[in-house]
Amino acid sequence: MWGMQPMSPAPDDAVSPGQAALARTDPRLPLHARLREVIAERVRAGEWAPDQPLPAESTLVAYYDVSLGTIRRAFRDLVEEGLLERRQGSGTFVRRASLTASLFRFFRFGTAGDGFPQSRILSIARQVGTQTITSALGLEAGSEVLHLHRLRLYEEKPVLVEDIWLPLPLFEPMERIGQDDLGDLLYPLYERTCGQIVAAATEELTVDVATAGDALLLQCARHDPVVVIDRVARSHDATPLEYRRSRGLARTFRYRIDLR
Amino acid sequence: MWGMQPMSPAPDDAVSPGQAALARTDPRLPLHARLREVIAERVRAGEWAPDQPLPAESTLVAYYDVSLGTIRRAFRDLVEEGLLERRQGSGTFVRRASLTASLFRFFRFGTAGDGFPQSRILSIARQVGTQTITSALGLEAGSEVLHLHRLRLYEEKPVLVEDIWLPLPLFEPMERIGQDDLGDLLYPLYERTCGQIVAAATEELTVDVATAGDALLLQCARHDPVVVIDRVARSHDATPLEYRRSRGLARTFRYRIDLR
Repeated sequence: MWGMQPMSPAPDDAVSPGQAALARTDPRLPLHARLREVIAERVRAGEWAPDQPLPAESTLVAYYDVSLGTIRRAFRDLVEEGLLERRQGSGTFVRRASLTASLFRFFRFGTAGDGFPQSRILSIARQVGTQTITSALGLEAGSEVLHLHRLRLYEEKPVLVEDIWLPLPLFEPMERIGQDDLGDLLYPLYERTCGQIVAAATEELTVDVATAGDALLLQCARHDPVVVIDRVARSHDATPLEYRRSRGLARTFRYRIDLR
Repeated sequence: MWGMQPMSPAPDDAVSPGQAALARTDPRLPLHARLREVIAERVRAGEWAPDQPLPAESTLVAYYDVSLGTIRRAFRDLVEEGLLERRQGSGTFVRRASLTASLFRFFRFGTAGDGFPQSRILSIARQVGTQTITSALGLEAGSEVLHLHRLRLYEEKPVLVEDIWLPLPLFEPMERIGQDDLGDLLYPLYERTCGQIVAAATEELTVDVATAGDALLLQCARHDPVVVIDRVARSHDATPLEYRRSRGLARTFRYRIDLR
């Protein structure tokens, strides 16, 4: 009897948006790679908020009309690439970088060890990027960038001076942000106001001596040693989102490495 | 006919030293774990020199009278633990730590980038270990240690001042070493003269300012920033073998980290 069924494709309105999205990918790729691409696109588009899990595997099976094995393979690849992360018992989420902890890898601010530094934004202004800044952000020479000058404090004491440069027009909404909307953490704010997710970063440590500005803000003597952390933070597709230079008193610096 | 064979054990002289060594291990452990223990013991005893491979698997099968699978499982565990390493095409070797590279992770000495620092031992003498030294080496307070004071040079220019403390009596032979036997690298010397293999280390970075002694040896100004690397090096069974404090000019320091 099955031979009697019509062999024509299902009518268009029976094609789910999921199947349509899959149909737009490169048909020469294996199905799990095509699915990976479609989900990666949704991740980059900021579809899922920090505490919102991706749909259940069974939901995606129906939505994309693929097997459970294909969903799992695509998820596994996306976890390995660092776009997704599994959280035991609560599902699969878009991975964000948690870089605040990195300050604690480098500096011992207090005896307590808990809590994290508070922020005080000293200024937000446009500037023409220097060669170092535009090259770090992958911009053309002379591009305008948004500059944030920020002081970080731990238990009311200044511990870090930060210069932060953001590409324009991507981060234009940050220019209009009110002082009251500026929390202690910038990365959740980048996501909320500009839809940009920081997924990874490269940091380079060097040592310098305190400038007059450092001395004033960090309440130290001029020429006291300072540790400088240059960070380039990137999105899931490796676009540079932020170039940051943090300067902290060297006497609070301590970093531990295990070698084999 | 087989029922007619004598069931008494084989005569003693038929038991190989390998089987005898295995017989001395805990019989409640699985065979691969007992074999792992026997080989680990031979590694710790310094049976194999740096360029000498372990015997072939087939040789060990006969020597210990175990299956190839048991040998492979024991080797795999020992590789994972860091006691052994496989070298493509040349066999399995006792792993030594290669920590010279760590200096290049932290300091940019020259433009060339190749070669490694030369050594000049300034003094070798016994001293009573301070609290910091004996605690780093896991010795009783007030223990005597051997102190080496060393200058490291790169392209004839001083780049690091090092204080090295070694536990006694383990490193007694180092006291009698002639200036001519002191090469640029200490770890091969520890192995040759004292039978001690460095397998791992923990390093802690901090920043200080140059003392009068640093200034003299590193040819810098007093109070110039210096980066201090405190290293505790350990054997395969985690015994502390060396505590070392290296001080280098901070202006040559640069360290890069990737974060996710």
